[in-house]
Amino acid sequence: MSGVSRRRLLGLAGAGAGGLALGVGAAATAAATGLDDVLRPDRGAGDGTAYPFHGPHQAGITTPAQDHLHFAAFDVTTTSRDDLVAMLQAWSVAAERMTRGAPAGEGDPASGAYDAPPDDTGEAMDLPPAGLTITIGFGPGLFQTADGTDRFGLAARRPASLERLPHFPADALDPARSDGDLCVQACADDPQVAVHAVRNLARIAFGTASLRWSQLGFGRTATTSDEQVTPRNLFGFKDGTANITAQQDDALAEHVWVPDADTDASTAWLAGGSYLVARRIAMTIEPWDRTSLREQEAVVGRTKGEGAPLSGGTEHDEPDLAMAGRGGLPLVAENAHVRLAHPSTNGGVRMLRRGYNYTDGITPLGRLDAGLFFLAFVRDPATHYVPMQTRMSAQDGLMEYLQHVGSGLFAVPPGAPEGGWVGQQLFA
Amino acid sequence: MSGVSRRRLLGLAGAGAGGLALGVGAAATAAATGLDDVLRPDRGAGDGTAYPFHGPHQAGITTPAQDHLHFAAFDVTTTSRDDLVAMLQAWSVAAERMTRGAPAGEGDPASGAYDAPPDDTGEAMDLPPAGLTITIGFGPGLFQTADGTDRFGLAARRPASLERLPHFPADALDPARSDGDLCVQACADDPQVAVHAVRNLARIAFGTASLRWSQLGFGRTATTSDEQVTPRNLFGFKDGTANITAQQDDALAEHVWVPDADTDASTAWLAGGSYLVARRIAMTIEPWDRTSLREQEAVVGRTKGEGAPLSGGTEHDEPDLAMAGRGGLPLVAENAHVRLAHPSTNGGVRMLRRGYNYTDGITPLGRLDAGLFFLAFVRDPATHYVPMQTRMSAQDGLMEYLQHVGSGLFAVPPGAPEGGWVGQQLFA
Repeated sequence: MSGVSRRRLLGLAGAGAGGLALGVGAAATAAATGLDDVLRPDRGAGDGTAYPFHGPHQAGITTPAQDHLHFAAFDVTTTSRDDLVAMLQAWSVAAERMTRGAPAGEGDPASGAYDAPPDDTGEAMDLPPAGLTITIGFGPGLFQTADGTDRFGLAARRPASLERLPHFPADALDPARSDGDLCVQACADDPQVAVHAVRNLARIAFGTASLRWSQLGFGRTATTSDEQVTPRNLFGFKDGTANITAQQDDALAEHVWVPDADTDASTAWLAGGSYLVARRIAMTIEPWDRTSLREQEAVVGRTKGEGAPLSGGTEHDEPDLAMAGRGGLPLVAENAHVRLAHPSTNGGVRMLRRGYNYTDGITPLGRLDAGLFFLAFVRDPATHYVPMQTRMSAQDGLMEYLQHVGSGLFAVPPGAPEGGWVGQQLFA
Repeated sequence: MSGVSRRRLLGLAGAGAGGLALGVGAAATAAATGLDDVLRPDRGAGDGTAYPFHGPHQAGITTPAQDHLHFAAFDVTTTSRDDLVAMLQAWSVAAERMTRGAPAGEGDPASGAYDAPPDDTGEAMDLPPAGLTITIGFGPGLFQTADGTDRFGLAARRPASLERLPHFPADALDPARSDGDLCVQACADDPQVAVHAVRNLARIAFGTASLRWSQLGFGRTATTSDEQVTPRNLFGFKDGTANITAQQDDALAEHVWVPDADTDASTAWLAGGSYLVARRIAMTIEPWDRTSLREQEAVVGRTKGEGAPLSGGTEHDEPDLAMAGRGGLPLVAENAHVRLAHPSTNGGVRMLRRGYNYTDGITPLGRLDAGLFFLAFVRDPATHYVPMQTRMSAQDGLMEYLQHVGSGLFAVPPGAPEGGWVGQQLFA
């Protein structure tokens, strides 16, 4: 059982440090070889990395984006508030254990109580923490059902902005990929670790909540660390160049965390939390791949290789949206994605994006079923997402190659203190 | 454009060595820290690893199993043999380039011909080779359609064993996840690299062949290296303990490669190749997770933690299928998976397994849609797969928790020499 012991050892090391326990492998590699610009910064380190579950904010928001995502939405099936609370408490206990590389339950997953089901499903038994984070959110339906029923006595505590996102132009939403009373965002540098986390939370939820939909993602289409190379989406373009990073405290305070000032006595439970917008955005891969490079760059508003704005400079230079080229037309077109997404076009608002690429086999028409699972954390969707998406859905040139097919909005409560559980402020 | 340059640099280094060019990162890490038993052996190394495309056998068979799989099956849509040959030639050229980390086409993916579509889709532009292998196979339909049409003049060259697998007991096959004229197995340590490879081959195939189905997988449920820790399947058990490894030349010759002796003048093109059996095996995760550890171990025939046979010893000890316990019953039950899969129960035949775990969201019933994408390379499916699977489908205790929902059989030709292309022996 050396695998289990190793996981526990690594997990305790991470917890004991009270913060990021970076695997020694990466640091040693960089020091010994000077290859830190060749190896992707967090590869190799990923296995030994452990992030603490407890803290003022939930992990998985400003955490540097891991390589893999398993996102799940749940419907609450119980009518008992006590059962729901007990499940959320059990989720926090299991999540804290799994993020430090321990099994989901206290029992050894493979010894002892032979006549009971194991309290960990076992497939991550030999694997280290792999940078796992588990982030829990609450959908509008948890507070009040569509017909107005106050299911769990929470209706008065629903923030006004926590409501189903409006129908945007060109939305083609599949109800089976949308909404949900609860969400779990599990991110890790090993997909088996992320899948294991969601599976064990679903197992713990049995009888209280059931899976509504889930989504796997890969490839870090966004980054929250200044050091990382900007990842690329499946259009082949860099995605996340101007993202908010973990180091930008002022931007996080202004655009990501819900401030005390946005809450009142009934919604104070969300102070220090955030809102999570989830959108499954299908890309029409084949038409895109037959589009000229000129057209691709024009609708994005950046070069494909470097990711520089079409107004000039390099990737991290600000686009000059006013600069005109031949015939007086702006170099960054009026319908270019980068223009419509730019803070200056959106009253200065920004989002912390954390999306992942996905590929889910093929569509019934024989096309690759692939795209971007867009995830963004914002202070308030009414100001920081809905106006921008309304404009982009109608005007963005990229929309010719996109279709929004899934949608969810969740309030993400603040982190739990040591010994506490995620959501305790809401149910107190 | 430093990303492209770096990829080319790494790629050339790999090709120049004429063999496995292991990224310096892993070796340096192990030497500097002695942590080779903590880090998974091929993590960290994965990014810089490049396997040569050309050689006597195709890569991706005895290659140590990478972390990620994108498998695709294609229907040939052209009626022109010349077009088919041209596509296979183009596939080999692109595959050789991508496996050394270069773009799929000669043009820089992001400069030059602005008015043409890029000849690489770009999403792997900043990524190193990541151990990519591309393995190409031919389905029965390439030789002869179901109604007997000799589509491309190949009917006389079809080996007798290359026919649709029989219907096994309890099979519940979905035609949309089964069969195909061609297959591509792309494996890499970065999922974006594997997805990129299949996407670009599909792009090159446009007008000649179209995607029929595809499957993503993760987690290395099998291993072909003596050094790797045996990975676990989604039942939480080690899977691949007794697998054939790349070092076992005798076993490869006896069980994996098609020998000259198995071919005649019309089928000599397959000598040095293999057969690939692909099966999508859905696991009923939730019932399994509510089964006692005793029952789980009994139907597998091994302990869950260590992976030791229930007859005693440790993981790599041979199971003693005759050893009796209480009441004279065998310690390894008559219906245990390990007994029915054991070579001694199957006339001594073995397979080189190379399967991957998969999780594809949830089923319409709200269950995790997860399981094993079983891949096995064998010398002859008529002797090395069909008899075993017939017995297992009827008798294996695990079948209570399994459903075979997809199936394919492909002949995998030998590797192409430098300057050659995969399949040239068949079309010569």
